[in-house]
Amino acid sequence: MSQIVTFGEVMMRLQTPLYKRFAQADGFDMCFGGGEANVAVGLAGFGADAAFFSKLPENELADACVAALKARGVETRFLLRGGERMGIYFCEKGAAQRPSKIIYDRKGSSINDISEDEIDIERLFDGTKWFHFSGITAALSEKTLNALRVLIAGARERCITVSCDLNYRKKLWSREKAREVMTELVGLCDVLISNEEECKDIFGIEAAGADIDGGVVDPEAYAGLAAALRKKFKNLTAIAFTLRTSVSASVNRWACILSTKDGCFVSKRYEINIVDRIGAGDSFSAGLIFSLLNKKSPREAVEFAAAASCLKHTVEGDFSIATAEEVEALIKSGGGGRVQR
Amino acid sequence: MSQIVTFGEVMMRLQTPLYKRFAQADGFDMCFGGGEANVAVGLAGFGADAAFFSKLPENELADACVAALKARGVETRFLLRGGERMGIYFCEKGAAQRPSKIIYDRKGSSINDISEDEIDIERLFDGTKWFHFSGITAALSEKTLNALRVLIAGARERCITVSCDLNYRKKLWSREKAREVMTELVGLCDVLISNEEECKDIFGIEAAGADIDGGVVDPEAYAGLAAALRKKFKNLTAIAFTLRTSVSASVNRWACILSTKDGCFVSKRYEINIVDRIGAGDSFSAGLIFSLLNKKSPREAVEFAAAASCLKHTVEGDFSIATAEEVEALIKSGGGGRVQR
Amino acid sequence: MSQIVTFGEVMMRLQTPLYKRFAQADGFDMCFGGGEANVAVGLAGFGADAAFFSKLPENELADACVAALKARGVETRFLLRGGERMGIYFCEKGAAQRPSKIIYDRKGSSINDISEDEIDIERLFDGTKWFHFSGITAALSEKTLNALRVLIAGARERCITVSCDLNYRKKLWSREKAREVMTELVGLCDVLISNEEECKDIFGIEAAGADIDGGVVDPEAYAGLAAALRKKFKNLTAIAFTLRTSVSASVNRWACILSTKDGCFVSKRYEINIVDRIGAGDSFSAGLIFSLLNKKSPREAVEFAAAASCLKHTVEGDFSIATAEEVEALIKSGGGGRVQR
Amino acid sequence: MSQIVTFGEVMMRLQTPLYKRFAQADGFDMCFGGGEANVAVGLAGFGADAAFFSKLPENELADACVAALKARGVETRFLLRGGERMGIYFCEKGAAQRPSKIIYDRKGSSINDISEDEIDIERLFDGTKWFHFSGITAALSEKTLNALRVLIAGARERCITVSCDLNYRKKLWSREKAREVMTELVGLCDVLISNEEECKDIFGIEAAGADIDGGVVDPEAYAGLAAALRKKFKNLTAIAFTLRTSVSASVNRWACILSTKDGCFVSKRYEINIVDRIGAGDSFSAGLIFSLLNKKSPREAVEFAAAASCLKHTVEGDFSIATAEEVEALIKSGGGGRVQR
Amino acid sequence: MSQIVTFGEVMMRLQTPLYKRFAQADGFDMCFGGGEANVAVGLAGFGADAAFFSKLPENELADACVAALKARGVETRFLLRGGERMGIYFCEKGAAQRPSKIIYDRKGSSINDISEDEIDIERLFDGTKWFHFSGITAALSEKTLNALRVLIAGARERCITVSCDLNYRKKLWSREKAREVMTELVGLCDVLISNEEECKDIFGIEAAGADIDGGVVDPEAYAGLAAALRKKFKNLTAIAFTLRTSVSASVNRWACILSTKDGCFVSKRYEINIVDRIGAGDSFSAGLIFSLLNKKSPREAVEFAAAASCLKHTVEGDFSIATAEEVEALIKSGGGGRVQR
Amino acid sequence: MSQIVTFGEVMMRLQTPLYKRFAQADGFDMCFGGGEANVAVGLAGFGADAAFFSKLPENELADACVAALKARGVETRFLLRGGERMGIYFCEKGAAQRPSKIIYDRKGSSINDISEDEIDIERLFDGTKWFHFSGITAALSEKTLNALRVLIAGARERCITVSCDLNYRKKLWSREKAREVMTELVGLCDVLISNEEECKDIFGIEAAGADIDGGVVDPEAYAGLAAALRKKFKNLTAIAFTLRTSVSASVNRWACILSTKDGCFVSKRYEINIVDRIGAGDSFSAGLIFSLLNKKSPREAVEFAAAASCLKHTVEGDFSIATAEEVEALIKSGGGGRVQR
Repeated sequence: MSQIVTFGEVMMRLQTPLYKRFAQADGFDMCFGGGEANVAVGLAGFGADAAFFSKLPENELADACVAALKARGVETRFLLRGGERMGIYFCEKGAAQRPSKIIYDRKGSSINDISEDEIDIERLFDGTKWFHFSGITAALSEKTLNALRVLIAGARERCITVSCDLNYRKKLWSREKAREVMTELVGLCDVLISNEEECKDIFGIEAAGADIDGGVVDPEAYAGLAAALRKKFKNLTAIAFTLRTSVSASVNRWACILSTKDGCFVSKRYEINIVDRIGAGDSFSAGLIFSLLNKKSPREAVEFAAAASCLKHTVEGDFSIATAEEVEALIKSGGGGRVQR
Repeated sequence: MSQIVTFGEVMMRLQTPLYKRFAQADGFDMCFGGGEANVAVGLAGFGADAAFFSKLPENELADACVAALKARGVETRFLLRGGERMGIYFCEKGAAQRPSKIIYDRKGSSINDISEDEIDIERLFDGTKWFHFSGITAALSEKTLNALRVLIAGARERCITVSCDLNYRKKLWSREKAREVMTELVGLCDVLISNEEECKDIFGIEAAGADIDGGVVDPEAYAGLAAALRKKFKNLTAIAFTLRTSVSASVNRWACILSTKDGCFVSKRYEINIVDRIGAGDSFSAGLIFSLLNKKSPREAVEFAAAASCLKHTVEGDFSIATAEEVEALIKSGGGGRVQR
Repeated sequence: MSQIVTFGEVMMRLQTPLYKRFAQADGFDMCFGGGEANVAVGLAGFGADAAFFSKLPENELADACVAALKARGVETRFLLRGGERMGIYFCEKGAAQRPSKIIYDRKGSSINDISEDEIDIERLFDGTKWFHFSGITAALSEKTLNALRVLIAGARERCITVSCDLNYRKKLWSREKAREVMTELVGLCDVLISNEEECKDIFGIEAAGADIDGGVVDPEAYAGLAAALRKKFKNLTAIAFTLRTSVSASVNRWACILSTKDGCFVSKRYEINIVDRIGAGDSFSAGLIFSLLNKKSPREAVEFAAAASCLKHTVEGDFSIATAEEVEALIKSGGGGRVQR
Repeated sequence: MSQIVTFGEVMMRLQTPLYKRFAQADGFDMCFGGGEANVAVGLAGFGADAAFFSKLPENELADACVAALKARGVETRFLLRGGERMGIYFCEKGAAQRPSKIIYDRKGSSINDISEDEIDIERLFDGTKWFHFSGITAALSEKTLNALRVLIAGARERCITVSCDLNYRKKLWSREKAREVMTELVGLCDVLISNEEECKDIFGIEAAGADIDGGVVDPEAYAGLAAALRKKFKNLTAIAFTLRTSVSASVNRWACILSTKDGCFVSKRYEINIVDRIGAGDSFSAGLIFSLLNKKSPREAVEFAAAASCLKHTVEGDFSIATAEEVEALIKSGGGGRVQR
Repeated sequence: MSQIVTFGEVMMRLQTPLYKRFAQADGFDMCFGGGEANVAVGLAGFGADAAFFSKLPENELADACVAALKARGVETRFLLRGGERMGIYFCEKGAAQRPSKIIYDRKGSSINDISEDEIDIERLFDGTKWFHFSGITAALSEKTLNALRVLIAGARERCITVSCDLNYRKKLWSREKAREVMTELVGLCDVLISNEEECKDIFGIEAAGADIDGGVVDPEAYAGLAAALRKKFKNLTAIAFTLRTSVSASVNRWACILSTKDGCFVSKRYEINIVDRIGAGDSFSAGLIFSLLNKKSPREAVEFAAAASCLKHTVEGDFSIATAEEVEALIKSGGGGRVQR
Repeated sequence: MSQIVTFGEVMMRLQTPLYKRFAQADGFDMCFGGGEANVAVGLAGFGADAAFFSKLPENELADACVAALKARGVETRFLLRGGERMGIYFCEKGAAQRPSKIIYDRKGSSINDISEDEIDIERLFDGTKWFHFSGITAALSEKTLNALRVLIAGARERCITVSCDLNYRKKLWSREKAREVMTELVGLCDVLISNEEECKDIFGIEAAGADIDGGVVDPEAYAGLAAALRKKFKNLTAIAFTLRTSVSASVNRWACILSTKDGCFVSKRYEINIVDRIGAGDSFSAGLIFSLLNKKSPREAVEFAAAASCLKHTVEGDFSIATAEEVEALIKSGGGGRVQR
């Protein structure tokens, strides 16, 4: 039994070494990653009891992926095996004015063929308190979407908290389709994680006065955005936003906002020399879920989640490698980065 | 215009470094390869004028593949661009008693969607003397097979010599389907490259007395095999066999046989400490086509092709990197490998 | 609960890259390993339910070691954490006439400070069928030896099969001390794994006529050696020997012998181009334990264990990376190493 | 036939890995580069039809260089082969307050021995619209200079636009010699690329009020400089300046100015976290030539060339790897570097 | 004979590659380092005649360390060989808000067992002008401390200048013990190197008004601190402080102060994009000793030492790789980092 | 003062990684090497007091070379600095039937410009017992040859033993020129190292019955060869031959012969799986000089030198990394290569 279960696709990530362009590479650094897998890894790193649910093919590449999840302390016993292939994504890391590029090669991956019949929901949700998914999973295929519906329904029946990271990917589905499906699914959620741009793109809800690129975050604007979302989705008890300002591919500013019934809380804003920003949003989700499950106050929760995701920017790969103690230490130190001997 | 045209799939090859198993790798060495692309590269290395025809997606990974072919001197202007993805194959190099493992991930690759209408056969075959393909290409999809039929027909109309490397891959199609299709296609060929095992598997023709694993190659047995093939496929003027004895994943023995109207010629047998044996058969094809196009005698041709493919075993990657001078030097030296200063 | 439990030290292994000498290295390849940890990994690879018991310090290096064990499927929940440091061993891989060199730096490592009081034997041995240790563990420190005694006694009480790999290391203790302690401990074992040289060094028992370096293994000689051991150690039901002939640091010959009440069984002898021979003996132990637990016949068991350890020679690192299917495939193929597509 | 021809030396570049000093390296990253080769590569990357002309020795190192140029789409058929050796330059990348260091080893390289008789100017300039060279080429040797004179004369006869990047290297020749020769050659050019410092050093012409290190670029000062140059060199229709402010070896500011009959146009100024700044000037030249050949307005041209060279700073190696689309995208985005999925 | 002698521990440093966390590494970059060894290397780099004194085990790892010192020009003939092991430290490089982490594994290393009897002080100090040590050496063990006392006494007898870098490491000893011992030892020194925090921690002396994290360094505050120290330690003729402001693990500000009888001199303040900050303090010590030995003025001395340590931040490893010419060039250029061709 | 002095060129060696061909490399492994430098390093490794004399340019690449020699314990204080450049050689390692290839780029290197006036022969030969050079040095330039003549004369005057490794390189000079010069120089030598092929090529002296490629070495044939040489060169007291049989680029057989007044002694013949064979002959010279200086018997000397050079084949780079103890251990063990723990 696992306290937290996440469901989604985990892919092989193939990245050109250092700052090499695709045209220059004669090899790739490899790791595994994907939104909900990253959230489970983040949670396990904090010491939480997290399981990842998905479907992977029966070959040595998928075996290596399962081993990587195990190594990071994630429960992998519920993973289904079968289908054709692992999804892959190729990545070229940007620098300065040159953006990172991602080429997805995830068509026909095993999770697209998942069937409701394969899901043993009793076993999967035995003792579970929290279920998490993202909009990416909803967009993959009809079968995946149906599996997701089954899981959300099963979670709600069992009074399991359901969280969703909106995560809109325009290459996977149209805005219209996303709006229709995500309106349905978010309506069934307790916690929503998103950003200002997505809310506008998918739900047409804008944060009046949210000066995204400016130096200051206006809590009022985000409070208004949260209110509008809460009006639309009655089940939501917590709504979180991440706020990224891209100075360049090398330097980003990052802050987070959490709106609950107690008000709207804005985290410290970090200016970050980026090592690897992929998976930072997932690390925020992990930090938030961990905080809320452990009854931290909203202020503590948003600072913990923001610091956790700030740290992720400094770690290579999709997976967050950070303990709760390291996150707490960052909150305390403010990020001066003095050598720890 | 190119003297030689080959048609088939070129894939991205992702290999674990050194002797790492899939379970141990956190990166892959990358190169490109595929039967007919390898043949074109081999020919260009010898100084021949070779073009590769295929279909590749429009992304930077495929751009890198085209650049790699250009770098090796292959004509790439006829390549079609479009479709979904590049085929990939993953490779783990064996050693001693542990065999190499290959995991194919080539479903849905662009060449599977090639349409006859995309082929500008006039332009492609302008000035061409030789067309080469392999059984793998025939097995990929119905669309690929149809494109192949169009190309073979176009070649025959223009009196272009057609060669086929039988190359049976049991994961791609059934023996029955392979027999049916390859019987049709080999019937249209002038030159066939194969081995004893495939001839038996696909055409049910055996080499009586071919002691494959023994120390001596019996030309008589292969002469009989060639005679049986020639009886079945009237157009064949030259039939070549490769003969690999796998002592272990680290050491192979390798010899080649060429049967023409002038008789059956057996090459020197090489005992090889393997660096990379993938693509050795393609290097043999390249050596054979180069020799026959350049009017070498059958004896010279089989020695040249055998030496070329022996050299390929010592080079990393699918592509042969050898000049005709290097092949000739091996034939002369016998392979003592003294330092060339 | 775990079917098999092993107890011993796991160390960080730091190896110069490729064939670099210590004098040439500006970096090390790192992995983890140690006799009993290797056995647990080998067993988990075959699909068995194996736990590793030891003591490791509380730092990120030891965390990485635990993650590596988890990744390979070993149960790590029983591991104690505390003490000063991880043991380390430095390794320089030999080639041809130059031998591999190992520099141990294991003094003061956490397992040397293990206390009986830390061992929750009820929990550790809940449901366990087999307990395994080696002579190295007995030699580490008095405290480690006492812990080992507690574990062996606990195992015998619960009718758990006890196996010992004699593994004499002359840098850890004197021959006299080893004889005294190992005579005590082997007297409590059901299964002994050793080789001809160790039996002579430690117990003064020689295999008359065992022509170690010759081309043929004489089962009679080993039957005699086993009989002498059985006479001395009444509990032994199975005695296994490994037989290594070192042609050079690059090529070894390897065979195994198993003596049970049904007779003395000699495995196929492998001539191996070595990738990494460290841990091959442990892989033999894993293969043997797996076979005996799964009721294989002595002949099957010795062939399985020999093939498993042959494969280990072809894999980098201490850990065996091989499935039971791969071992069976080697037994069937005889080791020709043909590419598996 | 090629639309654009460039002439100069291409060298092997050997760079210590990462930020290693020469004293620390036991290997080098290798690529090829040289002013005019870089310009040809940049142009080919934008989709232009560019040929590189030079002389290289007949060995495998030069073969690899030719392959690298082919891979990037440059026409290499006009390259002469012969002479003694390839020029080499060694490079140690600086960081923060430590400057990059370059050690040239280019004496006696093949291009120094080029003879006019080897140049088939009819074939080389068949269909050509633009010829480009730099001051470095003029400085190499008398023979190289003579070849350059022949090429410039040939270009002018054929009404081919001639551009020169002044590129003064004080280790190659004295200021006096440079002044004499470059005054002759620039007098034959249509387009000049330079910077404020070189104009002063070589031609003694200063940009009054050009506050190089300040935060603002004064177009007036550069307009004055351009006017003075135009007075001296009557053929010049376009004069471009690059303006680099070196905050440190890690961060540079970069802007470009183009003066034509339509006025003096200043590009956006970029602040760049440097990956590799070598070849940035050449990338500017490529962007400028591409723009002018494609009838972009001066404003568009200077922005395109500035963005192209900004991107080059983010790419390892001498060669620019950027498409025209990527350059346009940077102009549009302003360089925020958001991930492109 | 060597002009300068330093005494302390040199360790093997094992660092995860690039920005990998301990959890992600399967290898380490290796170099050697330790406070006083680093000082000797820095001095030798400037052309000084420096010897390093310590005790190292008799194995190939220590041989490699000695070779590394020799390669950098340090006199190694006085090194004692014997004892159990080399000290090791593991390092994970931080980035942005994530701090670097160091795990020490130095217990039981050979220098801890050094005996006074092993020291041939006549030979060691023959012709010596300067002796340097740090507080770390004093903290290692009683035996090391006694050896240090013998060396200091021997130096004073011979009128050799004695310098001490306070270097308090809280994991090695308590504040109380440090205060007691360092009060004794600094009382015997001519030159002290420290920082504001240590002075407060160890001697309870504060710099009134030293706004450490602010943008401006107040010489008055440091003059007061120096006066207080001089009052306590009568022998001190020069007192130097380093002043590090940690913006993040990626960017630090760095300045240095030197107080002599001529007044209190503050260096230029550098803002540094860090490559490797370990050993920067030692590089400052080397620069200071070199300057004072070479009779530079206090102003020149503090600028030289500050520039030397600024440069060290841009070089990987503990060892400074910089000539006196490079340091002077930085002082002149101010750090713009223009490429040196 | 150094017991042994060697004189020759040391070059930068740039080798493609692993088994990559020049066409495949985007980097080189770098080390330093050259006949006489290798001999000095080999001698220093055995504990002898060896100095290397040469001329190197004043740049950081040459500094790195000097550091590498120092690290290996060679006395470098006599090295001259000046001239244009370091010699370079590029290397591609062969495998199996593919030979290694070397591309020299040594023209114009500093040693070619050495002047007699630069040589302080008093200081260089102070206390020296042995002077060694090779035929390569004699072939470099007239100036180098003159310097060599000065050194040989100086050695003879001081009764220093002079040894020469004939080492004929056909790319450096003609057979006729080599014969003329080497006849002069060998006439001044006490010890000659050569092989059967060179003796024939240069001096026209053949070893009747020396079945080079056969399995057995005939001492009689070599005794005859030695007698003929001794007749021609009256000063020779010891003549040594190396005997390489190239089975392939991966496997060589290697034996050595020493002829003195006591007879003709043949070493054990080694069959070697090659790691790197470059410098093996130099390692033989070092072993021979070391043995003769240390008054070993001819039998001991030839076995020591043969074992030393056998070991060199297993070590990457030009330099031998072996202690006298390791060489002795190989002689004792016969080369079984058992792990040394």
